[in-house]
Amino acid sequence: MNWKSEISAARDRIAGYAQVTPVMESNIPGYPVELKLEHIQHTGSFKARGAFNTLLSSDVPAAGVVAASGGNHGAAAAYAAQTLGYPAKIFVPELAGPSKIALIRQTGADLSVVSGEYANALTAAQEHEATTGAMQIHAYDAPATVAGQGTCFAEWDVQGLQADTVLVAVGGGGLIAGALAWFGGARKVVAVEPETSCALNAALRAGEPVDVSVSGIAANALGARRIGEICFELAQGMSSVLVSDDAIAAAQLALWRAHRILVEPAGATALAALTSGAYRPEPGERVAVLVCGANIAPDPFAG
Amino acid sequence: MNWKSEISAARDRIAGYAQVTPVMESNIPGYPVELKLEHIQHTGSFKARGAFNTLLSSDVPAAGVVAASGGNHGAAAAYAAQTLGYPAKIFVPELAGPSKIALIRQTGADLSVVSGEYANALTAAQEHEATTGAMQIHAYDAPATVAGQGTCFAEWDVQGLQADTVLVAVGGGGLIAGALAWFGGARKVVAVEPETSCALNAALRAGEPVDVSVSGIAANALGARRIGEICFELAQGMSSVLVSDDAIAAAQLALWRAHRILVEPAGATALAALTSGAYRPEPGERVAVLVCGANIAPDPFAG
Repeated sequence: MNWKSEISAARDRIAGYAQVTPVMESNIPGYPVELKLEHIQHTGSFKARGAFNTLLSSDVPAAGVVAASGGNHGAAAAYAAQTLGYPAKIFVPELAGPSKIALIRQTGADLSVVSGEYANALTAAQEHEATTGAMQIHAYDAPATVAGQGTCFAEWDVQGLQADTVLVAVGGGGLIAGALAWFGGARKVVAVEPETSCALNAALRAGEPVDVSVSGIAANALGARRIGEICFELAQGMSSVLVSDDAIAAAQLALWRAHRILVEPAGATALAALTSGAYRPEPGERVAVLVCGANIAPDPFAG
Repeated sequence: MNWKSEISAARDRIAGYAQVTPVMESNIPGYPVELKLEHIQHTGSFKARGAFNTLLSSDVPAAGVVAASGGNHGAAAAYAAQTLGYPAKIFVPELAGPSKIALIRQTGADLSVVSGEYANALTAAQEHEATTGAMQIHAYDAPATVAGQGTCFAEWDVQGLQADTVLVAVGGGGLIAGALAWFGGARKVVAVEPETSCALNAALRAGEPVDVSVSGIAANALGARRIGEICFELAQGMSSVLVSDDAIAAAQLALWRAHRILVEPAGATALAALTSGAYRPEPGERVAVLVCGANIAPDPFAG
């Protein structure tokens, strides 16, 4: 696949539907780091990019679309479907939590909350797809999803990204696959995962995608049981680091204290690699962090 | 005073101390509006610009600095003093609220909470200045403060501001004085005040600064009893609109829902003029809104 061309096409396709998100320089780790505030994206995460790209590049059947999600992808798929006038059926696990569930309900999508984790929601979504003929929008392991997420990095290049190294949080791997696909070796990409939900790190160690158990404070965004095949293929030989839940919480607090940027734990996970020292830049190495999700629970305006 | 030159000098002076804040385009009012996310500034408001400019352009006495504030200016003055190694004494009224009081305490400043409103804190600060010889950093009615706040708009021009019209919230008038001083008629500036704290609007109607009563949800940021003389002089003939507390709260919620931007009521006041229709752009008129403050209470990480 010619990823550069796929991502460029996706960028043209979703222009006017996805939000162009701002960039800034921060000094949170004690040295300069470029941030892209992708949590400002519609529905509070980068997921809107992949959802719009999928719907705008497909013939959507009368049965509409279906998605399984830890929460953010479901909200994005529901929002994109609503914007484009398609019916949407969304499956999330209970651990999606009240903020994400409320967000999906606001779009008017038909929402089912299933017990267990993300993988259980995916099974339910696949059954719905088989029964109804609805089109599945995969949360991370589909080319249109990956190309959509890759637009985030294409956009950042246009905005003047300087960094040698870009740190990206990983769940199922759609976002970091987009980064690897776009940069194609022109910049180093570092994968950051919670110790308690590390499907990519485990796959790189095992030499193949393997099932992992998922838990911890970022599980409702990064809690994929197995890394996507597309990501795994692109990720060969890449740098992968793990961070603790405490390190994630500290980075989340630092973003609020320093910049009044309020994000969910997943949104602070990539930064946590710098603030905790899990990733230490070489002298002169310029670093950047994608801030990827803001759907904190409880929602500050809930209730 | 040659304001353009004062503001350009201030911009050079505070470079590396003040945060360069990001800009973006939003569609919240149903049409495009440029936003500058100045609430991302150190201590959560634009006030850090004026505080750094004042300290960096002055011979600070051994007694250090003193400031009176509804909260945000006090936090900024305390932060700037801490950064530059000066002792700071800050007076705030009780209505500053727990978030702003905690923020000032974190800097290590000597804080006194006085009863009443901002004007009472100012009286106490003036007594402290007279007794100790500490240098007063006025919250809004001093040339170095106004020039510092003006850097916000000089920076926005460099970042590619397109708008014909820039909407700015007004309390004592330091920020909007900086806007008027920088743009000097090159762009239209619109003053937005809460109906319940409208010192500039009242002054423009009366033809001179007059005392107003202050209340409402933005009073701990915009609750100046009387508009500053510098602002009043620059504001002759300008557009001034008022918004209700309900309109401010709706704009605050819209910023969170659309962009996960969490701000205090004052930070959403300028946007409220658009979302409420208090200011209606002419066909083809491009508008911009400065998002000025984020110190919401309760702090989402308090307790």
